[in-house]
Amino acid sequence: MSDRTRVVQVGLGAVGRMLTSYLLERPNLHIVGAVDLDPSLIGRDLGEVAGFDQALGITICADLREPFADGPVEAALLTTVSGLAQAKPQIEALLACKTNIISSCEELSFPWQTAPEASAEIDRLAREAGVSVLGTGVNPGFLMDILPTALTAICREVRKITVLRYQDARARRLPFQQKIGAGLTPGEFAQKKAGGTLRHVGLTESMHLIASRLGWRLDRTEDIIEPIIAEREVRSDHITVEPGQAAGVHQLGLGYVGSEEKIRLEFRAALGERDPQDTVILDGVPQLRFTVPGGINGDIATCSMLTNAIPTVIAAPPGLRTMADIPPPSWFSG
Amino acid sequence: MSDRTRVVQVGLGAVGRMLTSYLLERPNLHIVGAVDLDPSLIGRDLGEVAGFDQALGITICADLREPFADGPVEAALLTTVSGLAQAKPQIEALLACKTNIISSCEELSFPWQTAPEASAEIDRLAREAGVSVLGTGVNPGFLMDILPTALTAICREVRKITVLRYQDARARRLPFQQKIGAGLTPGEFAQKKAGGTLRHVGLTESMHLIASRLGWRLDRTEDIIEPIIAEREVRSDHITVEPGQAAGVHQLGLGYVGSEEKIRLEFRAALGERDPQDTVILDGVPQLRFTVPGGINGDIATCSMLTNAIPTVIAAPPGLRTMADIPPPSWFSG
Repeated sequence: MSDRTRVVQVGLGAVGRMLTSYLLERPNLHIVGAVDLDPSLIGRDLGEVAGFDQALGITICADLREPFADGPVEAALLTTVSGLAQAKPQIEALLACKTNIISSCEELSFPWQTAPEASAEIDRLAREAGVSVLGTGVNPGFLMDILPTALTAICREVRKITVLRYQDARARRLPFQQKIGAGLTPGEFAQKKAGGTLRHVGLTESMHLIASRLGWRLDRTEDIIEPIIAEREVRSDHITVEPGQAAGVHQLGLGYVGSEEKIRLEFRAALGERDPQDTVILDGVPQLRFTVPGGINGDIATCSMLTNAIPTVIAAPPGLRTMADIPPPSWFSG
Repeated sequence: MSDRTRVVQVGLGAVGRMLTSYLLERPNLHIVGAVDLDPSLIGRDLGEVAGFDQALGITICADLREPFADGPVEAALLTTVSGLAQAKPQIEALLACKTNIISSCEELSFPWQTAPEASAEIDRLAREAGVSVLGTGVNPGFLMDILPTALTAICREVRKITVLRYQDARARRLPFQQKIGAGLTPGEFAQKKAGGTLRHVGLTESMHLIASRLGWRLDRTEDIIEPIIAEREVRSDHITVEPGQAAGVHQLGLGYVGSEEKIRLEFRAALGERDPQDTVILDGVPQLRFTVPGGINGDIATCSMLTNAIPTVIAAPPGLRTMADIPPPSWFSG
């Protein structure tokens, strides 16, 4: 099947390994290479690393350019880091290989306000290479940015946008439960928060994406992190949280025009979180409330979005793209 | 303010008259002309016809080319008819004036399957004129097509799409209540249905938009219309429905691949309809239910979408566009 889209995976951490299955099950996609810098992965077969019974015949290599030596590759799936500063050299190396890039890098989802120089540089290199670059996923990339933005299309007036993402983390992977601080004492939580490793990355980028489309000039954004303290014992398959310990995290992204709060993104993820949901509230005309009772599983949604965005990114005009300036990606059958 | 976007309204029926307010309240839009063929409207001021206390200084003219004689007009808002056959000569005349077109014409929302030749012709003329043409609104244009399509982006697999639009028509205009057959006897309803005036236009176009993006080849579509018979008396400000009469309409769009129902669009609009809502159900991985309790007011949503789509359509590549191939429109502040 020579008309399949040739893709390369760059980054085989937790998201990259999950993503392998998603890419493989689409008959019109063809994984032709895999890259990771972790010495424990280099030289091993992608199938083995991704947890399959069978080898895929794709050997993980350390040199990002290697999989591009055998002919054109339409897209690279970049799932390495959350920060744009660390991702930028990888993006530049991929652009030198003239491949489109779809990345889970949170800070790449809307970097125009937070990193204007890096954005302009990536945009220029992508145009020169004739390819496009997109940062996406479920959050940032969908639930707290392009979805509420797109829902405003049926509004006569929008005064404020609120998005609630409440998750019961018991259904998620252990690394996620650890990432949100489940089981930490308030002191440990504060320490981890100060170290910057506890933060969900992307709220600021999501707010800037919304504001850019709605014509709001944000004078100030805030990104507030607090522990959710357990009132009674709560446990997952992996962790037991005692009363007084952190069951998870409450993170709040606030965007202001003057002193007016125009955007409120509320992210709660905790073991035993009640009433999990994803909800968009549009204050305006009409007053609207969109909700997904039970909420959306972040792992499935992120890997799906990365996969589903491939044809849209390949078809997009060259440059640094965001979810705000491409047609909506959608699931596609082979 | 010379940098305002110059727009012309073509069609001043119920939707066009409502739309005037929406356009006027955006500081970056400037209505420079209005056209209608109705002899009772020609020569009158747009403000008066749209129900304002004050005149707008825009005289409704019969000749579609007249408002374009005084300089470039970025966009025409075409709100005349539901059928593509009737809209096509109007679209062609507007394209000769080299203006982008945003239209509420339901059959224009995704005409590529139902009217491939007319679509190709409009596409060719639009490209030659260097402008783009979009059919949009709330339904078709949003709730039953691009919204469910865009929601699939977070899915690993989609087996079936169901959309429910249940409306309590008591909140809508009298013409809408009449259009859905409220107060008719079953015999009258059947007669009106046979005459084709009772049908909600657009379910077939919505199904083809979804299928085109998801890669489903629909072997067959159905569009079934039945009355909703009142079991007890129900009344609006305008109409009283006796038991045994039609309270409204139940319309079902079904799309099949082989014998499998892949798309189900269920439209219910009746006086006293219980549990009004707009809901998208995605059967697949994950299983998702996305809902707007109370539902969405169609008049507001349609006029908002027509207004909000203006900058996106102006920026789009020339040609016949659909909601599936442009970035998501959104509300914008002046």
